[in-house]
Amino acid sequence: MAQQVRAQITRERLIDGAAEAFTRLGYISATTTDIARSAGATRGALYFHFQSKEEIARAVVDKEQRLAVESGTRIVDLGRPALETMLLLSVDLAERMQVDPVVKAGIRLTTENSNFDPPLRAPYEQWLATFGAIAAVAVEQGDFRGDLDPAMFARFLIPSYTGIQLVSDTFTGRADLLPRIREMWLFIFPAVVPAERIENARAVLDGLIPEAL
Amino acid sequence: MAQQVRAQITRERLIDGAAEAFTRLGYISATTTDIARSAGATRGALYFHFQSKEEIARAVVDKEQRLAVESGTRIVDLGRPALETMLLLSVDLAERMQVDPVVKAGIRLTTENSNFDPPLRAPYEQWLATFGAIAAVAVEQGDFRGDLDPAMFARFLIPSYTGIQLVSDTFTGRADLLPRIREMWLFIFPAVVPAERIENARAVLDGLIPEAL
Repeated sequence: MAQQVRAQITRERLIDGAAEAFTRLGYISATTTDIARSAGATRGALYFHFQSKEEIARAVVDKEQRLAVESGTRIVDLGRPALETMLLLSVDLAERMQVDPVVKAGIRLTTENSNFDPPLRAPYEQWLATFGAIAAVAVEQGDFRGDLDPAMFARFLIPSYTGIQLVSDTFTGRADLLPRIREMWLFIFPAVVPAERIENARAVLDGLIPEAL
Repeated sequence: MAQQVRAQITRERLIDGAAEAFTRLGYISATTTDIARSAGATRGALYFHFQSKEEIARAVVDKEQRLAVESGTRIVDLGRPALETMLLLSVDLAERMQVDPVVKAGIRLTTENSNFDPPLRAPYEQWLATFGAIAAVAVEQGDFRGDLDPAMFARFLIPSYTGIQLVSDTFTGRADLLPRIREMWLFIFPAVVPAERIENARAVLDGLIPEAL
Protein backbone atom coordinates (compact mmCIF):
# COMPACT_ATOMS: atom_id res chain seq x y z
CA MET A 1 0.00 0.00 0.00
CA ALA A 2 2.73 2.47 0.99
CA GLN A 3 4.51 1.43 -2.20
CA GLN A 4 1.43 2.23 -4.29
CA VAL A 5 1.19 5.65 -2.67
CA ARG A 6 4.86 6.31 -3.35
CA ALA A 7 4.41 5.22 -7.00
CA GLN A 8 1.45 7.59 -7.33
CA ILE A 9 3.48 10.46 -5.85
CA THR A 10 6.34 9.79 -8.28
CA ARG A 11 3.89 9.68 -11.21
CA GLU A 12 2.42 13.05 -10.24
CA ARG A 13 5.91 14.51 -9.80
CA LEU A 14 6.84 13.29 -13.29
CA ILE A 15 3.73 14.94 -14.77
CA ASP A 16 4.53 18.22 -12.99
CA GLY A 17 8.18 17.97 -14.08
CA ALA A 18 7.11 17.32 -17.68
CA ALA A 19 4.81 20.37 -17.58
CA GLU A 20 7.70 22.50 -16.36
CA ALA A 21 10.11 21.10 -19.00
CA PHE A 22 7.58 21.45 -21.86
CA THR A 23 6.87 25.08 -20.93
CA ARG A 24 10.56 25.94 -20.60
CA LEU A 25 11.92 24.03 -23.64
CA GLY A 26 8.86 23.36 -25.83
CA TYR A 27 7.29 19.94 -26.17
CA ILE A 28 9.32 18.76 -29.15
CA SER A 29 12.69 19.98 -27.83
CA ALA A 30 12.28 18.64 -24.28
CA THR A 31 13.87 15.20 -23.88
CA THR A 32 12.90 12.50 -21.39
CA THR A 33 16.20 13.28 -19.63
CA ASP A 34 15.09 16.93 -19.25
CA ILE A 35 11.72 15.74 -17.90
CA ALA A 36 13.23 13.30 -15.40
CA ARG A 37 15.71 15.93 -14.21
CA SER A 38 12.96 18.54 -13.90
CA ALA A 39 10.94 16.03 -11.82
CA GLY A 40 13.91 15.07 -9.64
CA ALA A 41 13.43 11.46 -10.81
CA THR A 42 15.44 8.95 -12.82
CA ARG A 43 14.77 8.10 -16.47
CA GLY A 44 14.13 4.57 -15.19
CA ALA A 45 11.28 5.89 -13.01
CA LEU A 46 9.94 7.82 -15.99
CA TYR A 47 9.88 4.73 -18.23
CA PHE A 48 8.35 2.68 -15.40
CA HIS A 49 5.33 5.03 -15.46
CA PHE A 50 5.21 6.17 -19.11
CA GLN A 51 6.09 4.41 -22.36
CA SER A 52 7.01 7.57 -24.28
CA LYS A 53 7.26 11.34 -24.18
CA GLU A 54 3.92 11.47 -26.04
CA GLU A 55 2.29 9.40 -23.27
CA ILE A 56 3.56 11.77 -20.58
CA ALA A 57 2.39 14.77 -22.65
CA ARG A 58 -1.09 13.25 -22.85
CA ALA A 59 -0.94 12.76 -19.05
CA VAL A 60 -0.14 16.48 -18.66
CA VAL A 61 -3.19 17.39 -20.78
CA ASP A 62 -5.33 14.88 -18.84
CA LYS A 63 -4.23 16.44 -15.54
CA GLU A 64 -4.92 19.93 -16.88
CA GLN A 65 -8.42 18.82 -17.88
CA ARG A 66 -8.93 17.11 -14.49
CA LEU A 67 -7.96 20.36 -12.74
CA ALA A 68 -10.35 22.26 -15.03
CA VAL A 69 -13.21 19.90 -14.19
CA GLU A 70 -12.47 20.09 -10.43
CA SER A 71 -12.22 23.86 -10.47
CA GLY A 72 -15.23 24.18 -12.79
CA THR A 73 -17.36 21.93 -10.62
CA ARG A 74 -16.53 24.01 -7.53
CA ILE A 75 -17.65 27.13 -9.42
CA VAL A 76 -20.86 25.57 -10.79
CA ASP A 77 -21.67 24.29 -7.28
CA LEU A 78 -21.69 27.86 -5.97
CA GLY A 79 -25.15 27.99 -7.56
CA ARG A 80 -24.69 31.48 -8.99
CA PRO A 81 -26.78 32.58 -12.03
CA ALA A 82 -25.57 30.99 -15.30
CA LEU A 83 -24.15 34.24 -16.72
CA GLU A 84 -22.10 34.85 -13.56
CA THR A 85 -20.97 31.20 -13.63
CA MET A 86 -19.58 31.67 -17.15
CA LEU A 87 -17.74 34.86 -16.11
CA LEU A 88 -16.33 33.05 -13.07
CA LEU A 89 -15.15 30.11 -15.22
CA SER A 90 -13.43 32.47 -17.68
CA VAL A 91 -11.62 34.29 -14.87
CA ASP A 92 -10.73 31.10 -13.00
CA LEU A 93 -9.07 29.50 -16.05
CA ALA A 94 -7.21 32.75 -16.77
CA GLU A 95 -5.83 32.84 -13.23
CA ARG A 96 -4.84 29.19 -13.28
CA MET A 97 -3.16 29.69 -16.69
CA GLN A 98 -1.05 32.45 -15.18
CA VAL A 99 0.28 30.48 -12.20
CA ASP A 100 -0.10 26.69 -12.64
CA PRO A 101 2.67 25.00 -14.72
CA VAL A 102 0.38 22.05 -15.56
CA VAL A 103 -2.32 24.39 -16.88
CA LYS A 104 0.22 26.47 -18.84
CA ALA A 105 1.72 23.35 -20.43
CA GLY A 106 -1.64 21.63 -21.02
CA ILE A 107 -3.03 24.67 -22.86
CA ARG A 108 0.08 25.04 -24.98
CA LEU A 109 0.17 21.31 -25.85
CA THR A 110 -3.47 21.65 -26.94
CA THR A 111 -3.10 24.82 -29.01
CA GLU A 112 0.08 23.84 -30.86
CA ASN A 113 -1.35 21.65 -33.59
CA SER A 114 2.04 20.34 -34.71
CA ASN A 115 2.48 18.41 -31.44
CA PHE A 116 0.00 15.59 -32.04
CA ASP A 117 -1.41 13.93 -35.14
CA PRO A 118 -4.39 14.10 -35.04
CA PRO A 119 -4.40 17.28 -32.93
CA LEU A 120 -5.96 17.17 -29.45
CA ARG A 121 -9.67 17.93 -29.56
CA ALA A 122 -10.96 16.65 -26.20
CA PRO A 123 -10.19 19.82 -24.18
CA TYR A 124 -12.11 21.98 -26.68
CA GLU A 125 -14.98 19.48 -26.79
CA GLN A 126 -15.27 19.63 -23.02
CA TRP A 127 -15.34 23.44 -22.89
CA LEU A 128 -17.80 23.60 -25.82
CA ALA A 129 -20.19 21.22 -24.07
CA THR A 130 -19.86 22.99 -20.70
CA PHE A 131 -20.46 26.48 -22.09
CA GLY A 132 -23.26 25.27 -24.39
CA ALA A 133 -25.08 23.79 -21.38
CA ILE A 134 -24.57 26.82 -19.12
CA ALA A 135 -25.55 29.23 -21.92
CA ALA A 136 -28.84 27.31 -22.29
CA VAL A 137 -29.54 27.98 -18.60
CA ALA A 138 -28.65 31.67 -19.08
CA VAL A 139 -31.33 31.81 -21.81
CA GLU A 140 -33.87 30.25 -19.42
CA GLN A 141 -32.87 32.74 -16.72
CA GLY A 142 -33.35 35.67 -19.13
CA ASP A 143 -29.72 36.84 -18.96
CA PHE A 144 -29.19 35.71 -22.58
CA ARG A 145 -31.60 36.60 -25.40
CA GLY A 146 -34.42 34.10 -25.94
CA ASP A 147 -33.44 33.50 -29.57
CA LEU A 148 -29.78 32.75 -28.77
CA ASP A 149 -28.49 29.38 -29.99
CA PRO A 150 -26.41 28.14 -27.00
CA ALA A 151 -24.30 25.76 -29.12
CA MET A 152 -23.49 28.55 -31.59
CA PHE A 153 -22.59 30.83 -28.68
CA ALA A 154 -20.14 28.22 -27.36
CA ARG A 155 -18.69 27.68 -30.88
CA PHE A 156 -17.91 31.40 -30.93
CA LEU A 157 -16.83 31.94 -27.32
CA ILE A 158 -14.42 29.01 -26.80
CA PRO A 159 -12.29 29.69 -29.92
CA SER A 160 -12.33 33.44 -29.18
CA TYR A 161 -11.13 32.83 -25.64
CA THR A 162 -8.49 30.43 -26.99
CA GLY A 163 -7.14 33.13 -29.30
CA ILE A 164 -7.28 35.84 -26.65
CA GLN A 165 -5.18 33.84 -24.19
CA LEU A 166 -2.78 32.89 -27.02
CA VAL A 167 -2.21 36.48 -28.14
CA SER A 168 -1.95 37.64 -24.51
CA ASP A 169 0.69 34.93 -23.99
CA THR A 170 2.52 36.12 -27.13
CA PHE A 171 2.62 39.80 -26.13
CA THR A 172 2.80 39.80 -22.33
CA GLY A 173 3.20 36.19 -21.11
CA ARG A 174 -0.50 36.51 -20.09
CA ALA A 175 0.14 39.49 -17.75
CA ASP A 176 -2.69 41.40 -19.52
CA LEU A 177 -5.04 38.42 -19.80
CA LEU A 178 -7.68 39.57 -17.31
CA PRO A 179 -8.17 43.02 -18.92
CA ARG A 180 -8.38 41.32 -22.34
CA ILE A 181 -11.05 38.92 -21.02
CA ARG A 182 -12.93 41.88 -19.55
CA GLU A 183 -12.92 43.52 -23.00
CA MET A 184 -14.07 40.26 -24.58
CA TRP A 185 -17.14 40.13 -22.34
CA LEU A 186 -17.89 43.83 -22.81
CA PHE A 187 -17.97 43.19 -26.57
CA ILE A 188 -20.06 40.06 -26.26
CA PHE A 189 -22.73 41.39 -23.85
CA PRO A 190 -24.58 43.62 -26.37
CA ALA A 191 -24.75 40.66 -28.76
CA VAL A 192 -26.20 38.14 -26.32
CA VAL A 193 -27.66 39.93 -23.25
CA PRO A 194 -31.11 41.60 -23.56
CA ALA A 195 -30.78 45.41 -23.37
CA GLU A 196 -32.51 45.63 -19.97
CA ARG A 197 -30.04 43.16 -18.41
CA ILE A 198 -26.79 44.62 -19.78
CA GLU A 199 -26.27 46.99 -16.86
CA ASN A 200 -26.55 44.05 -14.46
CA ALA A 201 -24.13 41.94 -16.56
CA ARG A 202 -21.57 44.77 -16.49
CA ALA A 203 -21.94 45.13 -12.72
CA VAL A 204 -21.23 41.42 -12.26
CA LEU A 205 -18.20 41.68 -14.56
CA ASP A 206 -16.95 44.78 -12.68
CA GLY A 207 -17.11 42.75 -9.47
CA LEU A 208 -14.91 40.02 -10.98
CA ILE A 209 -12.48 42.07 -13.10
CA PRO A 210 -12.39 45.72 -11.96
CA GLU A 211 -11.85 48.22 -14.77
CA ALA A 212 -8.63 49.54 -13.20
CA LEU A 213 -6.95 46.14 -13.55
CA MET B 1 21.74 39.46 -64.06
CA ALA B 2 20.40 36.08 -65.20
CA GLN B 3 22.34 34.62 -62.26
CA GLN B 4 20.64 37.02 -59.83
CA VAL B 5 17.25 36.02 -61.19
CA ARG B 6 18.11 32.34 -60.84
CA ALA B 7 19.28 32.92 -57.25
CA GLN B 8 16.03 34.73 -56.46
CA ILE B 9 14.00 31.86 -57.94
CA THR B 10 15.95 29.31 -55.87
CA ARG B 11 15.41 31.41 -52.72
CA GLU B 12 11.64 31.53 -53.32
CA ARG B 13 11.58 27.79 -54.01
CA LEU B 14 13.41 27.17 -50.72
CA ILE B 15 10.86 29.29 -48.83
CA ASP B 16 7.95 27.42 -50.47
CA GLY B 17 9.66 24.08 -49.76
CA ALA B 18 10.22 25.07 -46.13
CA ALA B 19 6.54 26.03 -45.81
CA GLU B 20 5.53 22.62 -47.16
CA ALA B 21 8.00 20.77 -44.87
CA PHE B 22 7.01 22.78 -41.75
CA THR B 23 3.31 22.11 -42.37
CA ARG B 24 3.87 18.39 -42.99
CA LEU B 25 6.45 17.68 -40.25
CA GLY B 26 6.13 20.59 -37.81
CA TYR B 27 8.73 23.34 -37.54
CA ILE B 28 10.89 21.72 -34.88
CA SER B 29 10.87 18.23 -36.43
CA ALA B 30 11.61 19.37 -40.00
CA THR B 31 15.35 19.25 -40.78
CA THR B 32 17.22 21.35 -43.34
CA THR B 33 17.56 18.12 -45.37
CA ASP B 34 13.75 17.78 -45.39
CA ILE B 35 13.44 21.42 -46.47
CA ALA B 36 16.02 21.14 -49.27
CA ARG B 37 14.39 17.93 -50.54
CA SER B 38 10.94 19.48 -50.39
CA ALA B 39 12.28 22.45 -52.41
CA GLY B 40 14.07 20.23 -54.94
CA ALA B 41 17.32 21.98 -53.95
CA THR B 42 20.60 20.95 -52.32
CA ARG B 43 21.50 21.64 -48.70
CA GLY B 44 24.35 23.68 -50.13
CA ALA B 45 21.86 25.94 -51.92
CA LEU B 46 19.87 26.23 -48.70
CA TYR B 47 22.91 27.32 -46.69
CA PHE B 48 23.94 29.70 -49.47
CA HIS B 49 20.64 31.59 -48.95
CA PHE B 50 19.92 31.02 -45.24
CA GLN B 51 22.17 30.68 -42.21
CA SER B 52 19.82 28.48 -40.19
CA LYS B 53 16.43 26.81 -40.07
CA GLU B 54 15.25 29.70 -37.90
CA GLU B 55 16.25 32.18 -40.60
CA ILE B 56 14.29 30.29 -43.26
CA ALA B 57 11.29 30.07 -40.89
CA ARG B 58 11.39 33.85 -40.46
CA ALA B 59 11.54 34.15 -44.26
CA VAL B 60 8.37 32.01 -44.49
CA VAL B 61 6.60 34.31 -42.02
CA ASP B 62 7.91 37.38 -43.90
CA LYS B 63 6.57 36.00 -47.19
CA GLU B 64 3.22 35.22 -45.56
CA GLN B 65 3.03 38.81 -44.30
CA ARG B 66 4.07 40.15 -47.74
CA LEU B 67 1.27 38.11 -49.35
CA ALA B 68 -1.15 39.45 -46.72
CA VAL B 69 -0.15 43.05 -47.42
CA GLU B 70 -0.42 42.55 -51.20
CA SER B 71 -3.80 40.86 -50.94
CA GLY B 72 -5.00 43.35 -48.30
CA THR B 73 -3.93 46.33 -50.40
CA ARG B 74 -5.85 44.97 -53.41
CA ILE B 75 -8.95 44.70 -51.21
CA VAL B 76 -8.58 48.14 -49.63
CA ASP B 77 -8.06 49.61 -53.12
CA LEU B 78 -11.50 48.36 -54.17
CA GLY B 79 -12.76 51.38 -52.22
CA ARG B 80 -15.67 49.51 -50.62
CA PRO B 81 -17.14 50.83 -47.32
CA ALA B 82 -14.90 50.10 -44.31
CA LEU B 83 -17.22 47.45 -42.82
CA GLU B 84 -17.32 45.54 -46.11
CA THR B 85 -13.53 45.90 -46.43
CA MET B 86 -13.09 44.20 -43.02
CA LEU B 87 -15.42 41.36 -44.03
CA LEU B 88 -13.55 40.95 -47.32
CA LEU B 89 -10.18 40.84 -45.50
CA SER B 90 -11.45 38.20 -43.07
CA VAL B 91 -12.74 36.01 -45.92
CA ASP B 92 -9.66 36.54 -48.08
CA LEU B 93 -7.26 35.42 -45.33
CA ALA B 94 -9.48 32.41 -44.58
CA GLU B 95 -9.40 31.34 -48.23
CA ARG B 96 -5.65 31.83 -48.53
CA MET B 97 -5.14 29.85 -45.27
CA GLN B 98 -7.04 26.95 -46.80
CA VAL B 99 -5.02 26.69 -50.02
CA ASP B 100 -1.63 28.44 -49.80
CA PRO B 101 1.18 26.42 -48.14
CA VAL B 102 3.12 29.60 -47.25
CA VAL B 103 0.08 31.10 -45.51
CA LYS B 104 -0.68 27.83 -43.68
CA ALA B 105 2.92 27.54 -42.47
CA GLY B 106 3.29 31.25 -41.66
CA ILE B 107 0.15 31.24 -39.49
CA ARG B 108 1.21 28.08 -37.67
CA LEU B 109 4.74 29.38 -37.07
CA THR B 110 3.18 32.53 -35.60
CA THR B 111 0.60 30.84 -33.36
CA GLU B 112 2.90 28.16 -31.92
CA ASN B 113 4.66 30.13 -29.23
CA SER B 114 7.24 27.44 -28.54
CA ASN B 115 8.86 27.99 -31.96
CA PHE B 116 10.58 31.29 -31.28
CA ASP B 117 11.90 33.01 -28.20
CA PRO B 118 10.62 35.72 -27.96
CA PRO B 119 7.47 34.66 -29.86
CA LEU B 120 6.64 36.37 -33.17
CA ARG B 121 4.57 39.48 -32.63
CA ALA B 122 4.91 41.39 -35.93
CA PRO B 123 2.08 39.61 -37.80
CA TYR B 124 -0.37 40.39 -34.98
CA GLU B 125 0.85 43.99 -34.75
CA GLN B 126 0.24 44.46 -38.45
CA TRP B 127 -3.31 43.07 -38.31
CA LEU B 128 -4.10 45.06 -35.15
CA ALA B 129 -2.97 48.31 -36.82
CA THR B 130 -4.82 47.54 -40.07
CA PHE B 131 -8.13 46.67 -38.39
CA GLY B 132 -7.84 49.54 -35.91
CA ALA B 133 -7.46 52.00 -38.82
CA ILE B 134 -10.29 50.52 -40.90
CA ALA B 135 -12.60 50.31 -37.86
CA ALA B 136 -12.03 54.06 -37.27
CA VAL B 137 -13.27 54.68 -40.83
CA ALA B 138 -16.30 52.42 -40.20
CA VAL B 139 -17.14 54.64 -37.20
CA GLU B 140 -16.91 57.75 -39.44
CA GLN B 141 -19.12 56.06 -42.04
CA GLY B 142 -21.75 55.22 -39.41
CA ASP B 143 -21.48 51.45 -39.86
CA PHE B 144 -19.86 51.15 -36.40
CA ARG B 145 -21.31 52.84 -33.30
CA GLY B 146 -20.02 56.35 -32.66
CA ASP B 147 -18.73 55.42 -29.19
CA LEU B 148 -16.74 52.40 -30.40
CA ASP B 149 -13.02 52.42 -29.55
CA PRO B 150 -11.40 51.18 -32.81
CA ALA B 151 -8.19 50.00 -31.08
CA MET B 152 -10.22 48.02 -28.52
CA PHE B 153 -12.27 46.52 -31.34
CA ALA B 154 -9.08 45.35 -33.08
CA ARG B 155 -7.69 43.99 -29.77
CA PHE B 156 -10.81 41.84 -29.53
CA LEU B 157 -11.27 40.87 -33.20
CA ILE B 158 -7.72 39.82 -34.17
CA PRO B 159 -7.23 37.39 -31.23
CA SER B 160 -10.77 36.03 -31.70
CA TYR B 161 -10.12 35.40 -35.38
CA THR B 162 -6.79 33.79 -34.47
CA GLY B 163 -8.52 31.36 -32.13
CA ILE B 164 -11.36 30.63 -34.56
CA GLN B 165 -8.97 29.62 -37.35
CA LEU B 166 -6.91 27.59 -34.85
CA VAL B 167 -9.89 25.62 -33.54
CA SER B 168 -11.23 25.17 -37.10
CA ASP B 169 -7.80 23.81 -38.07
CA THR B 170 -7.89 21.46 -35.04
CA PHE B 171 -11.33 20.04 -35.80
CA THR B 172 -11.64 20.13 -39.60
CA GLY B 173 -8.30 21.21 -41.10
CA ARG B 174 -10.10 24.57 -41.71
CA ALA B 175 -12.83 23.00 -43.89
CA ASP B 176 -15.46 24.76 -41.72
CA LEU B 177 -13.57 28.04 -41.41
CA LEU B 178 -15.88 30.22 -43.54
CA PRO B 179 -19.09 29.22 -41.66
CA ARG B 180 -17.25 29.84 -38.37
CA ILE B 181 -16.16 33.31 -39.57
CA ARG B 182 -19.75 33.99 -40.63
CA GLU B 183 -20.91 33.14 -37.09
CA MET B 184 -18.19 35.35 -35.63
CA TRP B 185 -19.45 38.38 -37.56
CA LEU B 186 -23.09 37.61 -36.75
CA PHE B 187 -22.13 37.67 -33.06
CA ILE B 188 -20.07 40.82 -33.38
CA PHE B 189 -22.54 42.94 -35.41
CA PRO B 190 -25.03 43.61 -32.57
CA ALA B 191 -22.12 44.72 -30.38
CA VAL B 192 -20.61 47.21 -32.83
CA VAL B 193 -23.11 48.07 -35.59
CA PRO B 194 -25.93 50.60 -34.84
CA ALA B 195 -29.33 48.84 -34.80
CA GLU B 196 -30.54 50.58 -37.97
CA ARG B 197 -27.48 49.36 -39.94
CA ILE B 198 -27.48 45.72 -38.81
CA GLU B 199 -29.73 44.51 -41.62
CA ASN B 200 -27.39 46.05 -44.17
CA ALA B 201 -24.33 44.50 -42.45
CA ARG B 202 -25.98 41.07 -42.60
CA ALA B 203 -26.83 41.51 -46.28
CA VAL B 204 -23.19 42.33 -47.06
CA LEU B 205 -22.07 39.27 -45.06
CA ASP B 206 -24.62 37.06 -46.85
CA GLY B 207 -23.14 38.20 -50.15
CA LEU B 208 -19.66 37.12 -49.07
CA ILE B 209 -20.42 33.96 -47.06
CA PRO B 210 -23.85 32.54 -47.96
CA GLU B 211 -25.68 30.92 -45.05
CA ALA B 212 -25.83 27.54 -46.80
CA LEU B 213 -22.02 27.29 -46.88
